[in-house]
Amino acid sequence: MSLIVQKYGGSSVGSVERIQNVANRIKAKQEQGDQVVAVISAMGGVTDSLLDLANQISSQPSQRELDVLLATGEQQSIALLTMALHEIGIDAVSCTGRQAGVLTTGTHTAGKVHSINAESVLNNVKQGKVVIVAGFQGINEQGDIHTLGRGGSDLSAIAIAHAIGADKCEILTDVDGVYTCDPRVVPKAQKIQEISYDEMFEMASSGSKVMQARSVEFAKKHNVVFEVRSSLNQNSGTLVIEETPAMEAVVIRGVSIERAQARITITGLPDVPGTSAKVFTALSGAEVNVDMIVSNNTHEGLTRHSLTIPQSQYLQAKQALEPVLSAISDEAQLESEQGIGKLSVVGVGMKSHHGVAAQMFEALGQAGINIGMISTSEIKITITLAEEDLERGAQVVHTAFGLDA
Amino acid sequence: MSLIVQKYGGSSVGSVERIQNVANRIKAKQEQGDQVVAVISAMGGVTDSLLDLANQISSQPSQRELDVLLATGEQQSIALLTMALHEIGIDAVSCTGRQAGVLTTGTHTAGKVHSINAESVLNNVKQGKVVIVAGFQGINEQGDIHTLGRGGSDLSAIAIAHAIGADKCEILTDVDGVYTCDPRVVPKAQKIQEISYDEMFEMASSGSKVMQARSVEFAKKHNVVFEVRSSLNQNSGTLVIEETPAMEAVVIRGVSIERAQARITITGLPDVPGTSAKVFTALSGAEVNVDMIVSNNTHEGLTRHSLTIPQSQYLQAKQALEPVLSAISDEAQLESEQGIGKLSVVGVGMKSHHGVAAQMFEALGQAGINIGMISTSEIKITITLAEEDLERGAQVVHTAFGLDA
Repeated sequence: MSLIVQKYGGSSVGSVERIQNVANRIKAKQEQGDQVVAVISAMGGVTDSLLDLANQISSQPSQRELDVLLATGEQQSIALLTMALHEIGIDAVSCTGRQAGVLTTGTHTAGKVHSINAESVLNNVKQGKVVIVAGFQGINEQGDIHTLGRGGSDLSAIAIAHAIGADKCEILTDVDGVYTCDPRVVPKAQKIQEISYDEMFEMASSGSKVMQARSVEFAKKHNVVFEVRSSLNQNSGTLVIEETPAMEAVVIRGVSIERAQARITITGLPDVPGTSAKVFTALSGAEVNVDMIVSNNTHEGLTRHSLTIPQSQYLQAKQALEPVLSAISDEAQLESEQGIGKLSVVGVGMKSHHGVAAQMFEALGQAGINIGMISTSEIKITITLAEEDLERGAQVVHTAFGLDA
Repeated sequence: MSLIVQKYGGSSVGSVERIQNVANRIKAKQEQGDQVVAVISAMGGVTDSLLDLANQISSQPSQRELDVLLATGEQQSIALLTMALHEIGIDAVSCTGRQAGVLTTGTHTAGKVHSINAESVLNNVKQGKVVIVAGFQGINEQGDIHTLGRGGSDLSAIAIAHAIGADKCEILTDVDGVYTCDPRVVPKAQKIQEISYDEMFEMASSGSKVMQARSVEFAKKHNVVFEVRSSLNQNSGTLVIEETPAMEAVVIRGVSIERAQARITITGLPDVPGTSAKVFTALSGAEVNVDMIVSNNTHEGLTRHSLTIPQSQYLQAKQALEPVLSAISDEAQLESEQGIGKLSVVGVGMKSHHGVAAQMFEALGQAGINIGMISTSEIKITITLAEEDLERGAQVVHTAFGLDA
């Protein structure tokens, strides 16, 4: 008998029929002899409707009150799923984040899991009950309702799996697993059987939409093995685990892309301490999400920064930088390029294989695709390119690294 | 500076515009120098939508899970109202039932207020904040979410007013106050300025829809003065207070009616101990709400019970009684009359005035209206009559007791 945590996302519980489908899946698991704790998102669309109501009332609603409002979505879905389980004869009980003992820290609408007191969940499990937990939420030290931000239900599931010592954690979603690339972009993309936490983290950070990077980070930190699989069929999914020596045999695990990026290049900055800090403090103060940063010095003693940001944040970045640059130096200038994309290859095999970057650039060069910025980490290489080259670039790189199977 | 509890019902917060209207009313109160704690129902229609979802999943949903589901309605409305207050510059904070310290007992979906730990609400009040509390909900000893059943938000408001030692409790609703009769039935009905708890209780028990009787009972027990008034205008409403000597000068405070009733008469019961218990145990086991009971013995040593029930429960009452009657005696028979109404007059003045019943019956007799069952309490006389005579009966009685003003 295994103790299994399953997480079902909003589209998996998006209607009465789908809730009943999830109930039947849980029943099937139980009939196999497993004990199930399920972590549930709000019914698809509910969170957006609630946000819409809030925005009708205020353009900048209180984050604390947004948490109170948004947490109702999951509270509704856990009650409905629990009723659906009762209806098919399964003894089940719902828990809000508070009742599941999820204690949070951090700012409202972007909470972090501080700790989990799993006593109540475990007591219910011991009594043979299926426990249905509201994902995405907990309470903070003040006892206030606190949500975990985008992808928060994945984080809830992994944290609860850790807290109750589950044998397995399944992230059930509307895709079959993690693919070598988005199959809508690369039709030859293959489902990955096993992937390391680090690879999964880098893919999530570089555009793969399957999971949020921070959930993967939490799983790695606490060594929670989890499987990403479909809630719509019984196919096996992708197992996310600690890196094994065999994994290094594969040079590249996957290719990820990110659209709608912009590049900002700042030139003519005097190469003196504190100048860069002024630039990046201005951007972070304006809540601009800077991703790649490439910096170098010219022989005139000047510094040049190039950085990528989401295109949607281009104007706020420009407005934040202009006064700072004027204050620093008359020479300081801002150039930009919009309509670019990012293409990344990820794989722990990079650590033991040489020439991966060269192989990637050659494949792109042969396809006539121009490379913009380049940035590398131990297991990832990211480049920028024109957005119209993005899909073709992903395809040629996917083929070049033998991922087409 | 007064500390005021205001309760706003579902129709008062039924849309974004109405929520903003409530926020403005609260702001106006605060600008008068008062401190406000507001108890809020779910937005009109939300509770019904949630019940509908639950019923799509189960014809008999778990009561515990219904509480989890239904409590989200108030949690949403408190967050939205708090945002609306912030938007007009008022420092406000929301509290769920749990955060307001509402501890409950009793069965799920029909909770009772056990006690209130008002520390958190009072702390917020001390900081000058408007506190917006979710009505209708609390948590029980197990920490489970628990709703208070129909009219529960009124009960929440009165209990919180008591717990925080409020100077006043206002029940804001879509009517101007308590009337001597429903103005749709008796166009000459007058708004009552002051009414005693007992009168209010009896009117609520006998068909007045303004408030649930148990909220009035709670207010009386803890001596919480409250005012029923409109959330749509600034008219003064009806003050519900402890009985004063002056109140007895008025014989009848009001007339209330109840439609769609049925009478069941059981004849031929042997007049021996335990027989009546069998009859009424069968009815209560079938969850039939028995109201009036009139019993008497015949000279043959037989007992006869007449009782009224809601017409909608007639079939379940009949099915519950038939096997019991057969088991008691071959003589026992069940007669019934459907399509009847109840008409009540209520007033503490009855205690010191004689001939009230005679005056009521005479008015009805002169109008050619036939009286069925009669039952009396210290401050109420209730009769049954044909439902088609109900409105006319209310009008003639209203006139006869000088309530037309």
